[in-house]
Parts: sequence; structure tokens; C-alpha cells
Amino acid sequence: MSWVPGDTLRAMTIRHVHETVLYANDVVDAARFYVDILGLRAVGSIDADGAAFRLPEGDAVLLLFAPAYARREGRGVPAHGADGAGHVAFRVAAGSLDAWSATLARHGVLVEMDRTWQRGGRSIYVRDPAGNSVELVDGTIWAA
Amino acid sequence: MSWVPGDTLRAMTIRHVHETVLYANDVVDAARFYVDILGLRAVGSIDADGAAFRLPEGDAVLLLFAPAYARREGRGVPAHGADGAGHVAFRVAAGSLDAWSATLARHGVLVEMDRTWQRGGRSIYVRDPAGNSVELVDGTIWAA
Repeated sequence: MSWVPGDTLRAMTIRHVHETVLYANDVVDAARFYVDILGLRAVGSIDADGAAFRLPEGDAVLLLFAPAYARREGRGVPAHGADGAGHVAFRVAAGSLDAWSATLARHGVLVEMDRTWQRGGRSIYVRDPAGNSVELVDGTIWAA
Repeated sequence: MSWVPGDTLRAMTIRHVHETVLYANDVVDAARFYVDILGLRAVGSIDADGAAFRLPEGDAVLLLFAPAYARREGRGVPAHGADGAGHVAFRVAAGSLDAWSATLARHGVLVEMDRTWQRGGRSIYVRDPAGNSVELVDGTIWAA
């Protein structure tokens, strides 16, 4: 069980997160939040089993799954599926958090927390319809 | 509850996923997999409550939380926390999946599935020590 040599390691580096997953018992209801309020673009159809969204920047998708569907064996991919509130953070355009707060309020979405971080960044937190904690981030909140 | 005008919308676009979250009851054990086998770089300390990892490309972190910790109120951020197997996919360097399979095998990690997609991409799937489904992706698997 030895570590691989440096050159091999560099050639096979993990580059970035390609799929981020959240769960929702009512996928269609939750998907409306991501499309109609957050403005994400759905890839393919949205149904009771799942939905996929492209992020505007980079090479990544956000996936929403009904846990009962994701747990099913024989879907052609390994089973997964979790219950309870998940969490995701999105980076938003610089200086846009106040506009986001106003837009979220217009849609009846409560900002649960508005927090400024030690490193200068700021986050606002809301819940998607499934109860997942969704954070919108402006500026630096993590060490490099 | 009206939609915001186009210009405002563009100015406040969600750009990308900044934080992707998985849960593990034993964070330290799971973190070893991400650091020692997948080669991710930890940000700050790893403890029983949680761990954070920087991805080499882009502006994102992978977070591992003990659900019991993440659910606690009064941490200064909204509570979350899920039980059951989550899922994440990482993009890896092009052409590296066979090398990854060999490395994972050397570490005693079973490749649960090796799948080639209609769009030409290929994925291998393993489990982290907490049972989360971890996919390594090469090539195109999602529509643009």
C-alpha cells in the first residue's frame, strides 16, 4: 500500500469537482427554486427522480436527486442517497449580495443568516424548498 | 413575486459551486482517503467535526462534516447534516483513469463500477470510508 511516485501523481491529479449533489424528496418543487430564483440552467428534463443544472462558470453540474430514486439498485450507477439537510455554497458576482437579498425577499425566501467573515468575504444563507442550506458567497471566506 | 429584469439578473449571476459537502461519521478516517489516496490538500486542521480540502483547479472547496456536528445550532452558521451515502464526482487529468484504478487497487480501494458514457466520457466509482459514492470522471458525460 505504498504511495505513488510524484510524476505519476501529477499526471493523474484530481482537477476539480464535476458533480455536486443535493437531495430533495420533491425534486420538481426544489428544482423550481434553483431555476426560477437562483437562475440556474437545467440540463435535460426535470422529473420526480432528479434534475441537473449547469453552472455558468467552469465545468460542473449541480445534481438534485430524490433519495428514494438514488438509492435504487440497477440504475446503472452505484446507489447513494441521504436524508436530512445538505449544504452547498455558490460564488455569486462580486457586490451582488444585497441585490440577491432583495430578490430572495421578493420571492418570499427568508435570508436565515447574513455573515461577514474574518477574511473579508460575506455570505447569506437561505433554505431551498427541501430544507438544504444554500449559501451565496462574495469575497474570500477560505484560506488559499 | 416577479422575476428581476435582465440587467439586474446578469449582474447578480451565480458563478460556480464554491463549497461541496459530504458527511462522514468518522471525519478523520474519511479525510485520510481524500488526502492520502486522492491527493487533495487540506485547508486548516482536520478533526472529528470536519475537514476542508482545496481543489487544484478553480475556486472551490470540498467539505467533510460529521453530521452530529453540522446539525448543532449555535455554530455561527445555519445547521445542516445528512445521513446516508452522498455522491461527488471529480474531474481527473485526461487519460488517467487506468492509472487511478491501479493506484486505488494498491490502496485496497475497490472500483465498484467502470462505466463508459454515451457522450464518450468514462467514470470509475469507489466508496470513501464513510460509504459516500466517489466518481472519477474523464471526458464528457453531461450535455453542455
